[in-house]
Amino acid sequence: MDSQQQRFYREEALRMVLEKMMSRALDACIVTDLSSIRWLTGFSGSSARLLVTPGKSWLFTDFRYREQAASEVVVAETVIAADGFAAELNSGSYPLGETVALQSDTVTWHEASRLIEQLHGRQRVIPVDSFFDEFRMLKNDIEIRKMRCAAEITEQAFEKTLSLITASATELDIAAEISFQHKKLGAEKDSFSPIVAAGPRSAMPHASPTKAHLKPGELIVIDMGCVYEGYASDQTRTVALGRVSEEARRIYRIVREAQELGIASARCGMTGRELDAEVRRYIAGHGYADEFGHGLGHGVGLEVHEEPRISPKGEVVLQENMVFTIEPGIYLAGRFGVRIEDTVVMGAQGADPFQRFSKELIEL
Amino acid sequence: MDSQQQRFYREEALRMVLEKMMSRALDACIVTDLSSIRWLTGFSGSSARLLVTPGKSWLFTDFRYREQAASEVVVAETVIAADGFAAELNSGSYPLGETVALQSDTVTWHEASRLIEQLHGRQRVIPVDSFFDEFRMLKNDIEIRKMRCAAEITEQAFEKTLSLITASATELDIAAEISFQHKKLGAEKDSFSPIVAAGPRSAMPHASPTKAHLKPGELIVIDMGCVYEGYASDQTRTVALGRVSEEARRIYRIVREAQELGIASARCGMTGRELDAEVRRYIAGHGYADEFGHGLGHGVGLEVHEEPRISPKGEVVLQENMVFTIEPGIYLAGRFGVRIEDTVVMGAQGADPFQRFSKELIEL
Repeated sequence: MDSQQQRFYREEALRMVLEKMMSRALDACIVTDLSSIRWLTGFSGSSARLLVTPGKSWLFTDFRYREQAASEVVVAETVIAADGFAAELNSGSYPLGETVALQSDTVTWHEASRLIEQLHGRQRVIPVDSFFDEFRMLKNDIEIRKMRCAAEITEQAFEKTLSLITASATELDIAAEISFQHKKLGAEKDSFSPIVAAGPRSAMPHASPTKAHLKPGELIVIDMGCVYEGYASDQTRTVALGRVSEEARRIYRIVREAQELGIASARCGMTGRELDAEVRRYIAGHGYADEFGHGLGHGVGLEVHEEPRISPKGEVVLQENMVFTIEPGIYLAGRFGVRIEDTVVMGAQGADPFQRFSKELIEL
Repeated sequence: MDSQQQRFYREEALRMVLEKMMSRALDACIVTDLSSIRWLTGFSGSSARLLVTPGKSWLFTDFRYREQAASEVVVAETVIAADGFAAELNSGSYPLGETVALQSDTVTWHEASRLIEQLHGRQRVIPVDSFFDEFRMLKNDIEIRKMRCAAEITEQAFEKTLSLITASATELDIAAEISFQHKKLGAEKDSFSPIVAAGPRSAMPHASPTKAHLKPGELIVIDMGCVYEGYASDQTRTVALGRVSEEARRIYRIVREAQELGIASARCGMTGRELDAEVRRYIAGHGYADEFGHGLGHGVGLEVHEEPRISPKGEVVLQENMVFTIEPGIYLAGRFGVRIEDTVVMGAQGADPFQRFSKELIEL
């Protein structure tokens, strides 16, 4: 059932890509990033190139992935390219036409040069960037279902980890448990290395977990996500070990309110920049404009960071079926920080968070 | 103490790079891959570009890494590039000379084009690939010490995981435990997702762990590694759950003998190709030439796969202080496979494996 529906979506995606190619007078398109190849064809291996042409598409991979490609790939024919993709292209077996698009933001300069060389001037090679973003931003129901599963696994892993948050544990212990629980609960892997940042380190948005023991009275920022059937989850909660200061509780409240404001304010038709500004204004109103040093959120999908950006630079207009994070934070350098993050899917009526876990400050 | 020694090695590395640049008439070199940047400067963040010139070098990163760069970076001055590296280069503040090398195998075509554009034809940009390999292949004693630590963590993690190998466990359970133990024992992360492949899946060299339960009478290939202070480990053992067939025991013995032959045969002055051929001949002599479908090994260091290649394509001459794997395997498609892998460091007298764990077939 899914498989037929899945095939329909992939055919639809290919149709949209071909239409975009036609509108730009591109006769062929070489796809070099694995996420877009997976999105288009279903192939999940770690080595592939895809050639899209109006009549037919080909997926090139190596002998290690022969069986996997046979079972996964739709809408393209698989070719085992023993001598590599560039040599294969040069064989003259493919209808490249006159103008070939090549993803310039994911191919190396080295590979681009070799490909151009192999074509011996028979084709014009046009660099394209962010070519698939506009399509990949809009998730279909299969994708949203997988992302809900990923989010649920992460919520369960978080709950199971909570009991370990004691003064005898280190940040690294908690991070190890999160990765372990993700896998035990059925995830392929973490979508990024878990961030477990306690006390003063919680004020660094990208802190790596350390061997430091957790201390009573500290806030702990826990930012975590997993990958389920290719799709990422991303969530952050900030918890307290024992009783924290009145100031920490006040900052927590502001961030929580800001985060809930972000969810309540998201509307189809506004830009990411406008949503970011709404929440930023609220935090600035409490005097912490300079302590919220990053964007409000980012798209999530086959990659844990993708379009649309929800930040002062976010020009994309929010639409139904976009999935992105809402994750304001306040960071008091050298002291403590708070971040709260849900991943939401846009519906006609507003943003619906995948996460159900409470945002009350948990004191462990 | 280490820190002074470390600084000496980085200065030495920079001196060799500058000498190579001079010999090729390159006035400046733009380094774009994080491993080479870490090797040269010590910077371990996830966003950086490095500009090397004879008089001085600069590391460009963003505000998130200000503190980290201040504490880590030697032999270069850190610049927080708010508007990005291309804009910074265009400021005219850097002595680029006439000819600038750019790593073509690690920079995207998009970024290369932007950089070339920003230089407005004032400099010639020369693509260079594999520029640092010849230096990074030769490990100094600090690097070897870190790699020994990484290998020890992996051996301990493997030992702790053995007790879980029962018929009630799945491949994924074992993989989750390996990642967990790596972190608990002090590793930063896995150097690659652990391979736990039982029964017929053990015949696929790159199998992903599944939810399948382990079965008595099956061989299980366990290929795992971690990262410790930036440096990778890599080891494989094949174990049996209960008693396996006579044929499986025979294949195991051949692979074990081939692997030990590989260690015993490695000599400074021979090429990777010659070492590969030695072991390949032994396996072919037992009639399994076609069942050993990959190279004998690969270099390990800041990356888990780097130079030198130990394969039919390995033209590099083995030298003292190179670190690489020796990992022959025999794979009987649809039935079972065996692979045994150590990581060795070349000494004047031959190869010294980091791993101490027994290669007797373990029946659990």
